[in-house]
Amino acid sequence: MDIVKFSIPEIIFGRGAMKYAGLCAKRLGAEKPMVVSDPGLREAGWVSRLFDVLAAEGLEWCYFEDVVSNPRDTQVGHGALFYAEQKADVIIALGGGSPMDAAKGIAIVVGNGGSIHDYEGANRIHRPLPPMVFLPSTAGSGSDISQFAIITDTRRRLKMTIVSRTLVPNISIIDPMLLVTKPHHLVLAAAVDALAHAVESYVSVIASPFTELQSLKAIEIIAAHLPRAAQESSLDVLESLSIASTAAGMAFSNASLGADHALAHSLGGMFDVLHGEVHSVLLPAVMRFNLEHAMAKLAHIGKILTGKKWKSARTAALAGIEAMESLFLSLGMKHRLRDLVPDRDQLPTVCRMAAQDACLLTNPRPATWEDLLSICEEAW
Amino acid sequence: MDIVKFSIPEIIFGRGAMKYAGLCAKRLGAEKPMVVSDPGLREAGWVSRLFDVLAAEGLEWCYFEDVVSNPRDTQVGHGALFYAEQKADVIIALGGGSPMDAAKGIAIVVGNGGSIHDYEGANRIHRPLPPMVFLPSTAGSGSDISQFAIITDTRRRLKMTIVSRTLVPNISIIDPMLLVTKPHHLVLAAAVDALAHAVESYVSVIASPFTELQSLKAIEIIAAHLPRAAQESSLDVLESLSIASTAAGMAFSNASLGADHALAHSLGGMFDVLHGEVHSVLLPAVMRFNLEHAMAKLAHIGKILTGKKWKSARTAALAGIEAMESLFLSLGMKHRLRDLVPDRDQLPTVCRMAAQDACLLTNPRPATWEDLLSICEEAW
Repeated sequence: MDIVKFSIPEIIFGRGAMKYAGLCAKRLGAEKPMVVSDPGLREAGWVSRLFDVLAAEGLEWCYFEDVVSNPRDTQVGHGALFYAEQKADVIIALGGGSPMDAAKGIAIVVGNGGSIHDYEGANRIHRPLPPMVFLPSTAGSGSDISQFAIITDTRRRLKMTIVSRTLVPNISIIDPMLLVTKPHHLVLAAAVDALAHAVESYVSVIASPFTELQSLKAIEIIAAHLPRAAQESSLDVLESLSIASTAAGMAFSNASLGADHALAHSLGGMFDVLHGEVHSVLLPAVMRFNLEHAMAKLAHIGKILTGKKWKSARTAALAGIEAMESLFLSLGMKHRLRDLVPDRDQLPTVCRMAAQDACLLTNPRPATWEDLLSICEEAW
Repeated sequence: MDIVKFSIPEIIFGRGAMKYAGLCAKRLGAEKPMVVSDPGLREAGWVSRLFDVLAAEGLEWCYFEDVVSNPRDTQVGHGALFYAEQKADVIIALGGGSPMDAAKGIAIVVGNGGSIHDYEGANRIHRPLPPMVFLPSTAGSGSDISQFAIITDTRRRLKMTIVSRTLVPNISIIDPMLLVTKPHHLVLAAAVDALAHAVESYVSVIASPFTELQSLKAIEIIAAHLPRAAQESSLDVLESLSIASTAAGMAFSNASLGADHALAHSLGGMFDVLHGEVHSVLLPAVMRFNLEHAMAKLAHIGKILTGKKWKSARTAALAGIEAMESLFLSLGMKHRLRDLVPDRDQLPTVCRMAAQDACLLTNPRPATWEDLLSICEEAW
């Protein structure tokens, strides 16, 4: 086995865990943390709930919510200025992947100067970041666990993948109660994102025993709970999905991802589509593309997804992909690329950009942009 | 589910990973780290190998090896004085549980003053410790992963259990090649220690999905590889045992242990017995004691250890315990307590001390000192 690295934040998990946010920030030296969230969470009442927790610890804070889905370079710039103006000392992110990735972008610029574009790619951050406490409000992005930040470059209309060990937050506080106010379709989209993280990290060329364990656990839990999640958003289901998302986060943060995520980033950057809606369209096509290069592992996934033993690895793998497609259909998720992309002629541009994405490096089957185009054509 | 915490160090795992020790120490601010090891590792050549790695990074260092099996309060005191005299800035431990726990004890006293006795029990360390990089030379103790340090109180003749999140080293560098020079019986004893960590953490009253996953993985790997480990110390086997020990470390560090370890600490403190030799005697008896209070989980362990399905949970659990005893016998391990303890009359004292051990709090069945005595009598 090659030398592998495994790094995750300190995790505090459970219903009501948000109450530890102030204590955690103080442990990291906070006197005036900057809270990064978004209007949706403020309207749902969670932001003021967090302020109460901070106030109870005698903390001051400043608040930043200039964040949209697929957070932008410009917003990161504004946030970094705001952090400096306010003389903040710790970053607390509350939200889904977008506020969390925006918070990471802000932390990079605050700690390292320059513009967020300077840090695109792997291991380009050389100075320490301010301490980070993250509270995820979706069970999917895994940003609270991972070394990844995805920021949209508004000029080039693409998503920059930024990877660095320093992007692992210090503490992730995962409180499944935060998910209760999420619209149902967002809960499902996030769970499918977590499933994609689990599948892609499992077949990654740098998967290790430490990450494979987490990938499989996440797949198992999501396969068992996603159908129920489509019927109800009970706290039990949301807790299970949160456990799965956390496990998938541990896996992909350390084993990276593959062609599905490379394409999802490219599509998100160009067309501002919701990240969680891309995988139901692309993941099965990418798994088929990878078939010969990850047969045993895809067979294992097939066994979990179908709950059956199969005669050959190939039939197991294919049955798994079909079971996944049926599940997505039954959940009413998008299943053709034409439902997401306005114009087929733009696919070559999408694929050329995806071919540059850091996630593609760990796909089990090497892929040129033309390969990616054929995946997209299959999924059209 | 109650709120649970999960904290592990950054892990670098693999053959030859020791080469990163200098870089890791420098990342943590080292200019002159203190290396803590023991004469055995120095004689095997590993200490000078580590010095070469540090020198290649332009680091100075100081070296401390006043460490015995079941490391002592007095040695911790000497180490802390030496650290201060030498103006060291980072602690690098190289060795099995003894040098690693001694290094943790030194770190506590260096960072918090006073004597190591002041910190016995849970969460009594309030000031930061110097950064720690640990390189385990056995696949068992898990000290490189865990929040635990076990130090012998030489006056009271007992092992103090010290538990604190701050005792998780910053970086654990797990290089299975370090195990190649270990005597065979120590490799086996360490693996049985890891198995005990996995079993006790799995049935712990504070086990969580994050720890259960790791416990089961460790049990699976050890069950699959321990018989082979008895025949050969191939690097493949040592690597597998290292993965298992790391997984078990993640589990017990966050779910704690039980009656077997409470007794093992007490026995180690009074009679200086090798920690890894206690579990083959006590673990099956403790599992029987816990039977009614952890039936489903012990049945799951039984299924893994026997590789079979059983009609009832009880038969599975009991078959597992018997399979474990047969395995220990086939490995030539001690199986009666009389082989470890010189005098049966001292058992009540052993058990009264064990009843005070922090590990007993998480045993699935509450146990008085008289209960512990009946376990010891069964194992006599």
